[in-house]
Amino acid sequence: MENKILSIIETAIEKSRANSKGKVAGYIPELANVDPEKTQVSIKLTNGESITSGDHLDETFTLQSTAKLVVLIGLLEEYGLKKVQKWVRFEPSGSDFASIARLDQFGPYPSNPMLNAGAISLCSHIPGDFESQLRWLEKWVNKLFNSKLSIDQKVFASERRTGDRNRSLAYLLKSNGAIKGNIEEILETYFLLCSFKTTIEVSAYLPMLLANQGKSPDNQQIISKETAQITLAIMTTCGIYNESGTHLVHTGLPAKSGVSGIILASAIRKAGIAVMNPRVNAKGTSTRGQIILEHISKELDWHFASI
Amino acid sequence: MENKILSIIETAIEKSRANSKGKVAGYIPELANVDPEKTQVSIKLTNGESITSGDHLDETFTLQSTAKLVVLIGLLEEYGLKKVQKWVRFEPSGSDFASIARLDQFGPYPSNPMLNAGAISLCSHIPGDFESQLRWLEKWVNKLFNSKLSIDQKVFASERRTGDRNRSLAYLLKSNGAIKGNIEEILETYFLLCSFKTTIEVSAYLPMLLANQGKSPDNQQIISKETAQITLAIMTTCGIYNESGTHLVHTGLPAKSGVSGIILASAIRKAGIAVMNPRVNAKGTSTRGQIILEHISKELDWHFASI
Amino acid sequence: MENKILSIIETAIEKSRANSKGKVAGYIPELANVDPEKTQVSIKLTNGESITSGDHLDETFTLQSTAKLVVLIGLLEEYGLKKVQKWVRFEPSGSDFASIARLDQFGPYPSNPMLNAGAISLCSHIPGDFESQLRWLEKWVNKLFNSKLSIDQKVFASERRTGDRNRSLAYLLKSNGAIKGNIEEILETYFLLCSFKTTIEVSAYLPMLLANQGKSPDNQQIISKETAQITLAIMTTCGIYNESGTHLVHTGLPAKSGVSGIILASAIRKAGIAVMNPRVNAKGTSTRGQIILEHISKELDWHFASI
Amino acid sequence: MENKILSIIETAIEKSRANSKGKVAGYIPELANVDPEKTQVSIKLTNGESITSGDHLDETFTLQSTAKLVVLIGLLEEYGLKKVQKWVRFEPSGSDFASIARLDQFGPYPSNPMLNAGAISLCSHIPGDFESQLRWLEKWVNKLFNSKLSIDQKVFASERRTGDRNRSLAYLLKSNGAIKGNIEEILETYFLLCSFKTTIEVSAYLPMLLANQGKSPDNQQIISKETAQITLAIMTTCGIYNESGTHLVHTGLPAKSGVSGIILASAIRKAGIAVMNPRVNAKGTSTRGQIILEHISKELDWHFASI
Repeated sequence: MENKILSIIETAIEKSRANSKGKVAGYIPELANVDPEKTQVSIKLTNGESITSGDHLDETFTLQSTAKLVVLIGLLEEYGLKKVQKWVRFEPSGSDFASIARLDQFGPYPSNPMLNAGAISLCSHIPGDFESQLRWLEKWVNKLFNSKLSIDQKVFASERRTGDRNRSLAYLLKSNGAIKGNIEEILETYFLLCSFKTTIEVSAYLPMLLANQGKSPDNQQIISKETAQITLAIMTTCGIYNESGTHLVHTGLPAKSGVSGIILASAIRKAGIAVMNPRVNAKGTSTRGQIILEHISKELDWHFASI
Repeated sequence: MENKILSIIETAIEKSRANSKGKVAGYIPELANVDPEKTQVSIKLTNGESITSGDHLDETFTLQSTAKLVVLIGLLEEYGLKKVQKWVRFEPSGSDFASIARLDQFGPYPSNPMLNAGAISLCSHIPGDFESQLRWLEKWVNKLFNSKLSIDQKVFASERRTGDRNRSLAYLLKSNGAIKGNIEEILETYFLLCSFKTTIEVSAYLPMLLANQGKSPDNQQIISKETAQITLAIMTTCGIYNESGTHLVHTGLPAKSGVSGIILASAIRKAGIAVMNPRVNAKGTSTRGQIILEHISKELDWHFASI
Repeated sequence: MENKILSIIETAIEKSRANSKGKVAGYIPELANVDPEKTQVSIKLTNGESITSGDHLDETFTLQSTAKLVVLIGLLEEYGLKKVQKWVRFEPSGSDFASIARLDQFGPYPSNPMLNAGAISLCSHIPGDFESQLRWLEKWVNKLFNSKLSIDQKVFASERRTGDRNRSLAYLLKSNGAIKGNIEEILETYFLLCSFKTTIEVSAYLPMLLANQGKSPDNQQIISKETAQITLAIMTTCGIYNESGTHLVHTGLPAKSGVSGIILASAIRKAGIAVMNPRVNAKGTSTRGQIILEHISKELDWHFASI
Repeated sequence: MENKILSIIETAIEKSRANSKGKVAGYIPELANVDPEKTQVSIKLTNGESITSGDHLDETFTLQSTAKLVVLIGLLEEYGLKKVQKWVRFEPSGSDFASIARLDQFGPYPSNPMLNAGAISLCSHIPGDFESQLRWLEKWVNKLFNSKLSIDQKVFASERRTGDRNRSLAYLLKSNGAIKGNIEEILETYFLLCSFKTTIEVSAYLPMLLANQGKSPDNQQIISKETAQITLAIMTTCGIYNESGTHLVHTGLPAKSGVSGIILASAIRKAGIAVMNPRVNAKGTSTRGQIILEHISKELDWHFASI
């Protein structure tokens, strides 16, 4: 089986190399300088096996928006659905990931936790002061990726420097009463969240955990089944921003994308998948990643509605 | 198993009776005059068994927007995904089911086929003249519900009389080049589609077919697996309009609602579910239906991500 | 004085010829086939004198949206402000002349009578059947232009054929309860209104009447002072669609534009001005016309706030 | 004449007292605590005479958004129209005074300088550091009101404390490249601008100056005729936010409102008018003020299009 999967991955990567749509995110140098050809895939089966292929597999990238899953899962586990749904809604917005117009017209609460506004809002509910919040994030990142991840300090510094649109979102949330507290501190936490770095193999662990109802390959319940199901539901309708519907039609895989070019996807009962190529489309999602996920899903019959 | 399911259905109905949120749709007398307390549930297992409970189970209602599934499935089967996706997109719109603003700002093509604009657009692609289109609809309705359904002529007449918002949508689609042809004729077909009537037990057949990858209980492939999966993907992100995300978090069930109070939902690999109560919320979905689906899904562990 | 004005007009025309921004409206052949270089100006002083210059001055064009003034003025005269403001609002919309999104979000009533939706709405209030409405329009067109204008039947036929966006607006108005009656008949009247044809010299009479507080040069009160002032106020804030503010900063002249390239402008106490060139910008206004009006206003000190 | 005007003012105030629509702005205590019945009117004729009536005429209020005129005029005088129109547009937005949605959808530049976003943008172009900017503001405030005004420090402190929506606007402007510099410093300047305090009689001087083409009653050219005309044009289309069109239909007076309940209006060639009552409608404009201005304009025939 691993050999078959490896072969499918390699074919998918090869197929995707013909695609050069999308552009490497240019708003910070740490993203802008990544080789646009670098393409990586890793599949973590629910039995614990990893199958990985691609370029420079030991090089790290930052989680960016895929880390929004971490704060969502951590708060669901610690506070439960009832509280979390007071802080953020769970609807696809029909707008882009940083839409301020949407929030202004349909607020006060963010449409969903996969958007910047939603994740900023959730960050404001991480308990404690900035130091505690950093530790909280580290605890959850490490737990969900089964690995000790560190912050990319250059990315963190760049995100802070260029984060004016997120500042605008955060002050709008505050002026509408949707969040409280010191905005610069909340944003520090949010920028930290985006700046954890990892390898492609490590990053496939979280979507595997979700696909496996919250259990590790050795059958430990790392997060509750309910949290895993809620998170998958949110990924399904909101994870690829305003392409989530099209993504689901083509792949059948709940997923979450990040502007570094990473996409995490869950094949229910089967595996976690991580794909990475830095060329992202206008909506912030890796175009090669989409090609690869569609290929893998079709070849392995991993659509969420497959029997 | 059937006894357990019946008991769960009956508890769900009982629980839902405490809810009187939502209002019976009042725009046409045929909907307005339905008893707001009438509540019905039917589950069709993929093995063919039906478990049904509720009030006046032999009374019929019109499919309304759940019939949008019929035209989508018929066209997917006859023309394939590539053609259909030239006519309509597959994205949740973030707006209500008859939003003209959304179409004006993000067109020319409708956001998805579960919206009025999307279904009108698909109706314009049913082959042939009006008589042929009627026969085409009958063919597909009968196939997908495994039963001969007829048109409620009073509802059809009322829909035509009150359909000015749909006329506005249709002329906007035409003026943008998204559809061609005679608008009044296209709308006739669309109003026909909404006016098929059925019972609760019959209506559970279609979501069972989707849950079973397109196969009937006796293992006939009625529609292709691919069409079933695409349709489920679209229901998942768009079927409950701008509540689809919240619905999925609470039930984990791909579903489609109609303004008559019907909701059709698919429990992957397990069953089709039909629930009906005429009180619908501002977004056009049965409020008791949502309570019942959440209860059933939790008790039977029918979330799409359950193993 | 007439010589000075003629010289200013000729300089303005000359200056404008360097401009080739904008495009001849292409949605109907009768507009598309007009020579893009044809440029005409006429000034009608409140003392009755006409000063006219440009190309092919005896050729006619259709009033298009400048005729929206006619239905507004006629209804104000016959029904008064209180009634008219129940049918339409008087606010600049911030959106384009045929915005459906705006109407859907901020309706049910049109933002102002200079937009398509507003004029369609007013047309639904012209008394009588279609024949009476045609006579009503002729009466008011002839009165306000002091001349017998006729319908360009080819333009009328083309407008009807291509008017789907206006149909969409009209059905939306009806579905929201903002207008009543048969939509196709209301639109016939609206398309008639747009299809009156005239020469540049004749068309300057109406803005002169407004500039002169409703009086003809021989001091007859053709329309009331109040109606003239209300109409000028509406032209000032809404007449050049979503360029009205910029237009007023640059010219200081209340004005109304039409897609045939005509702009009518009123120099308070001084004159009516008509300019015509078929190249219109994306917002539906003659680009040469704007250059000419700015030149004339500055040279003659005709800003509304000049002493 | 003064006696006639005084009598008209007194009748207008009396008439307005029957109106209790609108609410005293509650977002800061200094505005919330003003007596809702306090009503004041002052007219400054272009010949220099003042006619003033109402309650507690020696009590001051803050200029709030009417001070947006000051920064606009100062920058027009010092940099000219060509530069200013690179920083801000001159179109009525169709949206409310602090709309972020509008700016997000139609930016990057603010629709007009009468909106919060527009005035914040202009504040970023006042030359020098914070101290210089304060002196610049004092210079222009004193010049335009012909009087030495001071800052209400309590209002200034409250505006800073509650200004999160303005922070959101400012960061959005910055993230779009429409403004540069330190946002907190720019907002300090903006909040200062809003916090100048004055009496009703003093505040009528600025609209008189505009009505008199920039000249003082003793015929000194205080600001250029061009600046006065541009400012009046902008007030006409944008001064009363998304009620500017309706306001102009009813009064014929270019005007600017502020949330303290002040409205400044210019009767071309005749006078400046200041009216004040703290009850403001949802759009931020004094409801009694509108009644009073309409009465005065009609009685004195001060519509901009009157001869």
